[in-house]
Amino acid sequence: MDAKQFALEQHEKWQGKIEVISRAELNTPEDLAVAYTPGVAEPCLKIAENVDLSYTYTRRSNLVAVVTDGSAVLGLGNIGPEAGIPVMEGKCALFKAFADVDAFPLCIRSNDVEEIVHTVELLAGSFGGINLEDISAPRCFEIEAQLKERCDIPVFHDDQHGTAVVTCAALINACKLTGRELKDIRVVFSGAGAAGISIAKLMQRMGVTDIIICDSKGAIYEGREGMNPEKAQIATWTNREGVKGSLADAVRGADVFVGVSAPGVLTQDMVRTMAANPIVFACANPVPEIMPDEALAAGAAVAATGRSDFPNQINNVLAFPGIFRGALDVRASDINDDMMEAAAYAIADLVDDEHRCAEYVIPGAFDKRVAAAVAAAVAEAARKSGVARL
Amino acid sequence: MDAKQFALEQHEKWQGKIEVISRAELNTPEDLAVAYTPGVAEPCLKIAENVDLSYTYTRRSNLVAVVTDGSAVLGLGNIGPEAGIPVMEGKCALFKAFADVDAFPLCIRSNDVEEIVHTVELLAGSFGGINLEDISAPRCFEIEAQLKERCDIPVFHDDQHGTAVVTCAALINACKLTGRELKDIRVVFSGAGAAGISIAKLMQRMGVTDIIICDSKGAIYEGREGMNPEKAQIATWTNREGVKGSLADAVRGADVFVGVSAPGVLTQDMVRTMAANPIVFACANPVPEIMPDEALAAGAAVAATGRSDFPNQINNVLAFPGIFRGALDVRASDINDDMMEAAAYAIADLVDDEHRCAEYVIPGAFDKRVAAAVAAAVAEAARKSGVARL
Repeated sequence: MDAKQFALEQHEKWQGKIEVISRAELNTPEDLAVAYTPGVAEPCLKIAENVDLSYTYTRRSNLVAVVTDGSAVLGLGNIGPEAGIPVMEGKCALFKAFADVDAFPLCIRSNDVEEIVHTVELLAGSFGGINLEDISAPRCFEIEAQLKERCDIPVFHDDQHGTAVVTCAALINACKLTGRELKDIRVVFSGAGAAGISIAKLMQRMGVTDIIICDSKGAIYEGREGMNPEKAQIATWTNREGVKGSLADAVRGADVFVGVSAPGVLTQDMVRTMAANPIVFACANPVPEIMPDEALAAGAAVAATGRSDFPNQINNVLAFPGIFRGALDVRASDINDDMMEAAAYAIADLVDDEHRCAEYVIPGAFDKRVAAAVAAAVAEAARKSGVARL
Repeated sequence: MDAKQFALEQHEKWQGKIEVISRAELNTPEDLAVAYTPGVAEPCLKIAENVDLSYTYTRRSNLVAVVTDGSAVLGLGNIGPEAGIPVMEGKCALFKAFADVDAFPLCIRSNDVEEIVHTVELLAGSFGGINLEDISAPRCFEIEAQLKERCDIPVFHDDQHGTAVVTCAALINACKLTGRELKDIRVVFSGAGAAGISIAKLMQRMGVTDIIICDSKGAIYEGREGMNPEKAQIATWTNREGVKGSLADAVRGADVFVGVSAPGVLTQDMVRTMAANPIVFACANPVPEIMPDEALAAGAAVAATGRSDFPNQINNVLAFPGIFRGALDVRASDINDDMMEAAAYAIADLVDDEHRCAEYVIPGAFDKRVAAAVAAAVAEAARKSGVARL
């Protein structure tokens, strides 16, 4: 049986990848009298007096909504909310398996920014955090920004920030390995979508100053004709030298390539024009911008992809479970840049000096140390940045 | 420790009465490749082609949203959405324990009918059914009616219809026991709220023709002064003889009293004025309209209450788990009157001729036969009434 058919049959067998179980024994009238009426009135009254006690007496303290409108599911595009459920359930299953976070999928039948924001806002009292997922750009930026303003619980768009955290973790170690400092490197991106922008922003925050973002027309620079508002905005804080031309022009001399775009756009010849010992992160899925063995053969010192069948997998599962675990543990009101940067360093630090090498700049997806290390670092950063409420 | 303190501490210990777990093994890269990328793309694509397949490949087929705005939680009033969570979680735990239905609480931060309806409508694609809970009247009627129209999944307001099903089940057996036919009895209600109206409607549908509903001012009749629109509506389909006066006047000669109102409003003297061998269902909680031993001492042939510490408990848990189990099993598009009536008879029929007696007109809350019997009857009624989709 081929892998696709197997996945389909397995999903039918699972009848859903999540399940809602009871944590309370409900076998006797006495059980019912505590968990339901009349006993349940007591926690209700306490919460009515002080809404913060909803974290003490309900599952809210461990509960994250995984929210999508189905508009950018995997690489499949706008397939609709119901068709997005298998991915959202998978995400919820990963939350539970990797960090004991209870997560529940909410797939919204609207692509309207205000409707999505308002729906989530009205439900925020039932959850301890909101993970946005697979919402198309540029709407995802506005939805995230508005929700952050209007909700008192952390809001996190994993496609942007989870990807950014893991890519930056890999970058930290790739730079150590090749003797580079973040402040000195030139990073060229292929892909100006949500992930690319978010990675670039986190890199900039962590000290990278020389960033060029390319779309399918080449380098984005101030004054380029025909740019939409998002790209015009990108031009204001990247490409300080005003580099023009194609991706091939842009990568010439660059230290790092980050691909979040399309299969095969980086050729071996292009890698050969990069700085000595270049770093190549080709994250298009499932077919990367360049296959890692090809990148290495063309002189790359480090290659990473989104794939599990090559070394150095840039996999969001290294980030989001631990990030929410840490945020929930201190009842953070936000997941801010400090917390994301802390998560990136926590992931990077698990690769020690002794083991760091071209094939190992990022821990494996199943490295059991990761979620706890990320959670601790995120919780600490939440406290230091003043968003922890415990 | 007193019971209230114990309930509070137990809730703190539980840290929530529900939990979201993974049904998929996620221990290896191979597991991930099936449950998440790239395997998950296959069920997504199938659902995108045919949205009905969301029932095959996701948990939707077994998933009910328990929705409240926290406006009428238990007898506590409008305590807000967060304070309602303990009750909603309790309900979800009961769904799972009694009928293996996965249920998830959604507490909405709005008391506005249109906002609540729209929020639920936008999320309907993530669920197989909607259980409305603890929403104050008369908003609950409008919310339910609009959602039934706008959603393609069953919508059920348990405070109305669950109560109606269980009360009617008890009535069926109480009538058998006292040699009455439903078509011949006079039923007098104390309480013109959501539960009272819904019970009366289901009784009427089941053949009861002589119903008088009293509020705190006495019998509701056409032309009574100062009635709100809901009560004016009640007057159009009840009290065919135009009986006027207090509750005491109304119950004179009545066969059945149904209390869904306030403690102590039915006196022993009033019971003595009812027809011979009257039936008294005093369901105010926790203190009933008349204590059952007092009702029996005053001549009642059967007494039932909402309490677990007396015989004949009118407990919604006899109805809602099996009703949703049956509706989900045949993927019903609605929970209609036929299904509710079938549920009432299914519950009543579990009390056989041999065991039926004054202390046993309704099965116990923990009678393990109930949910399956209700589910089977509801599924069958869904098929016959044309709302089953399987």
